[in-house]
Amino acid sequence: MIVVMRPNATEEQIQLVIKRLKDFGFDVHLSRGVERTVIGAIGEKTAQKIQQLEATEGVERIVPILQPYKLAGREFKKERSLIDVSGVVFGGTTVPIIAGPCSVESEKQIIETAVAVKEAGASMLRGGAFKPRTSPYAFQGLAEEGLRLLAKARAETGLPIVTEVVNPRDVALVEEYADMFQIGTRNMQNYTLLTEVGKAKKPVLLKRGLAATINEWLMAAEYIISAGNPNVVLCERGIRTFETETRNTLDLSAVPVIHELSHLPVIVDPSHGTGKWQYVTPMAKAGVAAGADGVIVEVHPRPDEALSDGPQSLKPDAFAKMVEECHKVALAVGRRVFVDR
Amino acid sequence: MIVVMRPNATEEQIQLVIKRLKDFGFDVHLSRGVERTVIGAIGEKTAQKIQQLEATEGVERIVPILQPYKLAGREFKKERSLIDVSGVVFGGTTVPIIAGPCSVESEKQIIETAVAVKEAGASMLRGGAFKPRTSPYAFQGLAEEGLRLLAKARAETGLPIVTEVVNPRDVALVEEYADMFQIGTRNMQNYTLLTEVGKAKKPVLLKRGLAATINEWLMAAEYIISAGNPNVVLCERGIRTFETETRNTLDLSAVPVIHELSHLPVIVDPSHGTGKWQYVTPMAKAGVAAGADGVIVEVHPRPDEALSDGPQSLKPDAFAKMVEECHKVALAVGRRVFVDR
Amino acid sequence: MIVVMRPNATEEQIQLVIKRLKDFGFDVHLSRGVERTVIGAIGEKTAQKIQQLEATEGVERIVPILQPYKLAGREFKKERSLIDVSGVVFGGTTVPIIAGPCSVESEKQIIETAVAVKEAGASMLRGGAFKPRTSPYAFQGLAEEGLRLLAKARAETGLPIVTEVVNPRDVALVEEYADMFQIGTRNMQNYTLLTEVGKAKKPVLLKRGLAATINEWLMAAEYIISAGNPNVVLCERGIRTFETETRNTLDLSAVPVIHELSHLPVIVDPSHGTGKWQYVTPMAKAGVAAGADGVIVEVHPRPDEALSDGPQSLKPDAFAKMVEECHKVALAVGRRVFVDR
Amino acid sequence: MIVVMRPNATEEQIQLVIKRLKDFGFDVHLSRGVERTVIGAIGEKTAQKIQQLEATEGVERIVPILQPYKLAGREFKKERSLIDVSGVVFGGTTVPIIAGPCSVESEKQIIETAVAVKEAGASMLRGGAFKPRTSPYAFQGLAEEGLRLLAKARAETGLPIVTEVVNPRDVALVEEYADMFQIGTRNMQNYTLLTEVGKAKKPVLLKRGLAATINEWLMAAEYIISAGNPNVVLCERGIRTFETETRNTLDLSAVPVIHELSHLPVIVDPSHGTGKWQYVTPMAKAGVAAGADGVIVEVHPRPDEALSDGPQSLKPDAFAKMVEECHKVALAVGRRVFVDR
Repeated sequence: MIVVMRPNATEEQIQLVIKRLKDFGFDVHLSRGVERTVIGAIGEKTAQKIQQLEATEGVERIVPILQPYKLAGREFKKERSLIDVSGVVFGGTTVPIIAGPCSVESEKQIIETAVAVKEAGASMLRGGAFKPRTSPYAFQGLAEEGLRLLAKARAETGLPIVTEVVNPRDVALVEEYADMFQIGTRNMQNYTLLTEVGKAKKPVLLKRGLAATINEWLMAAEYIISAGNPNVVLCERGIRTFETETRNTLDLSAVPVIHELSHLPVIVDPSHGTGKWQYVTPMAKAGVAAGADGVIVEVHPRPDEALSDGPQSLKPDAFAKMVEECHKVALAVGRRVFVDR
Repeated sequence: MIVVMRPNATEEQIQLVIKRLKDFGFDVHLSRGVERTVIGAIGEKTAQKIQQLEATEGVERIVPILQPYKLAGREFKKERSLIDVSGVVFGGTTVPIIAGPCSVESEKQIIETAVAVKEAGASMLRGGAFKPRTSPYAFQGLAEEGLRLLAKARAETGLPIVTEVVNPRDVALVEEYADMFQIGTRNMQNYTLLTEVGKAKKPVLLKRGLAATINEWLMAAEYIISAGNPNVVLCERGIRTFETETRNTLDLSAVPVIHELSHLPVIVDPSHGTGKWQYVTPMAKAGVAAGADGVIVEVHPRPDEALSDGPQSLKPDAFAKMVEECHKVALAVGRRVFVDR
Repeated sequence: MIVVMRPNATEEQIQLVIKRLKDFGFDVHLSRGVERTVIGAIGEKTAQKIQQLEATEGVERIVPILQPYKLAGREFKKERSLIDVSGVVFGGTTVPIIAGPCSVESEKQIIETAVAVKEAGASMLRGGAFKPRTSPYAFQGLAEEGLRLLAKARAETGLPIVTEVVNPRDVALVEEYADMFQIGTRNMQNYTLLTEVGKAKKPVLLKRGLAATINEWLMAAEYIISAGNPNVVLCERGIRTFETETRNTLDLSAVPVIHELSHLPVIVDPSHGTGKWQYVTPMAKAGVAAGADGVIVEVHPRPDEALSDGPQSLKPDAFAKMVEECHKVALAVGRRVFVDR
Repeated sequence: MIVVMRPNATEEQIQLVIKRLKDFGFDVHLSRGVERTVIGAIGEKTAQKIQQLEATEGVERIVPILQPYKLAGREFKKERSLIDVSGVVFGGTTVPIIAGPCSVESEKQIIETAVAVKEAGASMLRGGAFKPRTSPYAFQGLAEEGLRLLAKARAETGLPIVTEVVNPRDVALVEEYADMFQIGTRNMQNYTLLTEVGKAKKPVLLKRGLAATINEWLMAAEYIISAGNPNVVLCERGIRTFETETRNTLDLSAVPVIHELSHLPVIVDPSHGTGKWQYVTPMAKAGVAAGADGVIVEVHPRPDEALSDGPQSLKPDAFAKMVEECHKVALAVGRRVFVDR
């Protein structure tokens, strides 16, 4: 890292910083410019050392050279990771589509949806049993009953299931039923929860926080991996900006950026990313063209009766059309959605 | 609420929406313009009804007229709430100052800080025992040992203590020791945790999420209040913007906005809001001038040895100066910091 | 529009608002809820009337129902506009690629680039003669000499040229040389300039402002169209967010949103959108998949000698590969880049 | 500056970068870490050199050490600048208040307002003659007639006047009438206009762009100063964020940041910063407490008849109260609003 001293830093302050750096075990290179003295420091940096140095008198700022994540980073592992979720592989040539309702509402609804999305070409089923809702008065999900219904839908269709876990206490319960945990956008920095799924065995779908930088997102992945679970799939689902025509701004450039910085697969969620069903299909195709390793979308047989997220849910026939179109785009970029075509 | 129909909505679609509104129990007013038909609906709206209507064919969008929060809103309770934390009152004429280190690091450090901030005029002590850190490799706090040290510092100085709780499982434990829970910015939408402190007895300091609208912040307060705990103090601590000279952008206009929309007290945190100790004192004074019901700042006897947040921590003497200056500004706006001057 | 009255509005205030609405020529529908009175108003609204009503006592807020733009809106013109730039058509089946250096630096550089991009499949040449630079000490462009060199490159290759105009005084001069004006992101709300190109004859490429909502962007188009020039092509080039891994956040969802709200073509600029050449090709392909009506990218024969924007410029061979890949994606979505394949 | 090489950079690439740095006239310090090689470079950097180096093969990124502005920076001039506008001084102990309507609408309106704000304690009069409006159909100002009316109001009251210039062609005309130019938020990066007022003699009030970083804002000031006009007063007027309860987010931390980075005075505009008159007074007081060198607010005798910005305009009596309260806060921070009290 580089320590930039203030223009008026005294010689004493400079020497003190050098001493502290050496005490921290850094190799030190001093460089005196006309207006600033900068000190290069080579060694193992930590967040704590950085903040202590920043708080040292005479120091203007610290410029880190290396990324703060290790296990999630490309330098730790050169080749792309393949994450296997009960036979569905993320990170390879095939681009799996995950589909299903926002919330599991009833047996009829989830089975009907599962059959329809399977038919249309989806590889996995999504559905919420525990719902984090902005309003305490909104439908909060069917809890364990929802998990049971998801398992039933899997038995019926063979689709592996991914579902959100919001409470550290529920991790074991969810793991019993689901093939993959989902960590939602509001919990991307819920470190208790990240550590808990990090100790579990099933893979994790880690959504980007609403206002999380890519760096912070990879640090959240680092929590999970460093706790013991290397099977993390990232999911870009839109960030918060000033634009109001869409619910969020789907940051598709996160796809090539993640592919450069990390070995982990990254998928996109155009349903939450845009908030309106009309924009889901074009953005799903754009995600595939940008190189996404998968797509997750909300599908509901009757969006105007959905207990949540109806406005951004596709009907089964629109979804089937989306899958067909994504497959064509996938072929154009050397990949495929349908395994068998 | 107002239902705006698409320009090409058919008569059949309009009639269907009217029927659904009536089924939901709304009184309906139809208004046909040249380009749009809009339908006014009076009655009890819910997030679910709104989304189902939005997903109905022919509907362009729904415009809610009333705010989604009830118990946290000014219309529910006209007069300002006074929240008493072991004798320290938020929302009245006095403007309490809460101070202390980011993390409790040792007995010496927390006692020394507590004595110093008490001396300088602080009314409460802050300090983290459970620390949510961006990096899994950073100091995560002393946990229960930290709570014990805080209690010791309270015994020594008489200052009530506020400390963060991050895991729903720890709510009872934290409540044993602390006078007030803190819900941190990353957990503002951790609904499991909000509900848990909502069931507890001690007051809650609810920090605004990094990218939370004021509306969402009040909905988070609604979670706590609707679970049974009306003693919520809001804390503006900076929002995420594109500006990089400061760690966050302290949104002081949230103070008068909250005072208009809600009866709850709101305090400001210029330490996290700016991220640099040089800017803490001017922004603390600005917060008091804007009408804040309190100030919370980070103080550390030796910021360059702090295990976290050193760069934004004031030293005790700078803090003492800040309190003096805040008191002068408080007097200028008809309030006071020192109870006895 | 809808006028929402404050909860404590008096009957007198309500009647006064109704009177003002009638004086403004609106048809009025009164709707009294339990907590709020809302007044529907049908008629010709203007920004001025809205603000005057908002400033009237007892009024809480105004909810506009119709979009503020007319000529740029889909309701004004149902079918998509085709904009012809010296034979290159935007908005049709073909997806034109515009390429060239950030700045025109020398005859050799611009001719060499023009020949290379033509060869690779570009339909138009871009290049800056007047450069708006953040620093007053940076290269500001060759001015009229730059225009002459662009015209020479056109003569050599047959590629129509687009170039930025920054000063209202230069509109006539630029029109002499260029086939299309570019209004840059910093000038999207430079109304003097918008009006000036609105009075000109050549088509206009209107870049989205760094922090402009889609609504404001369409209002900027409205300025140009209402001044007499209907030939506007919109260009999404990234918006400002908190993310720092990319220079801006390319908002590709703007493509389907614009196609829903407006009849104007919209193209994407992945060079400015990402700021790094590595991300340009994936985002160009994503733009085409999202439905963009064109792509504009920066190409420089030797980026490390470019006088501006080197880091985001593709070399000619990488550009040729990008065009090939965009063509494949275009075919997958029922369009084409190469006219003759 | 620091050149950070990619982890896989070859020795040849490293040597090439060193050679280029030396050719650019830099002193070079090489530092080889385990994972990265970084090269320190001391000398005169320019935006062009930085971009060329960034575009050089093997280079990951460039970390600038010094700020890009010179004349606007604190290192260029240690003591705070005092800017004199026809006898009203910004940057000293007194905190001048500038007040007046958004637009000059009529002789009666501007004279009435000028007399009222003078009476209440304002030091300068504001009023728009050329109005940049989002809609081409909105009132665009009275142009030269507006300037004449402003001059009349000055003659009547003795208050110096500040008014916006939007067209480079009008700079000479505005200078004839006004005491101070205003560069509006939409034109902060209109470099043609900045250069034009930089060549003029009168002081300039430079508003921060809606999405401008503090760094870019100081670069805009650098344009004006480097063109010959050192008399720049900065004005924080709110930045664009995701929050919608306020029109913009007034970034008061910009005040201490500017005071650290620059010698120029900085004032605040709570009218545009919040967009609602209810929030103007608390935020004006907060600005003074934060150390602002002045306040600018919109005042209109009858906001509900204003041709623009009525909702954020104070009535004269509310304004008078605001000035009194700002004076008290100013005294609390060692300054004053009223010169004679």
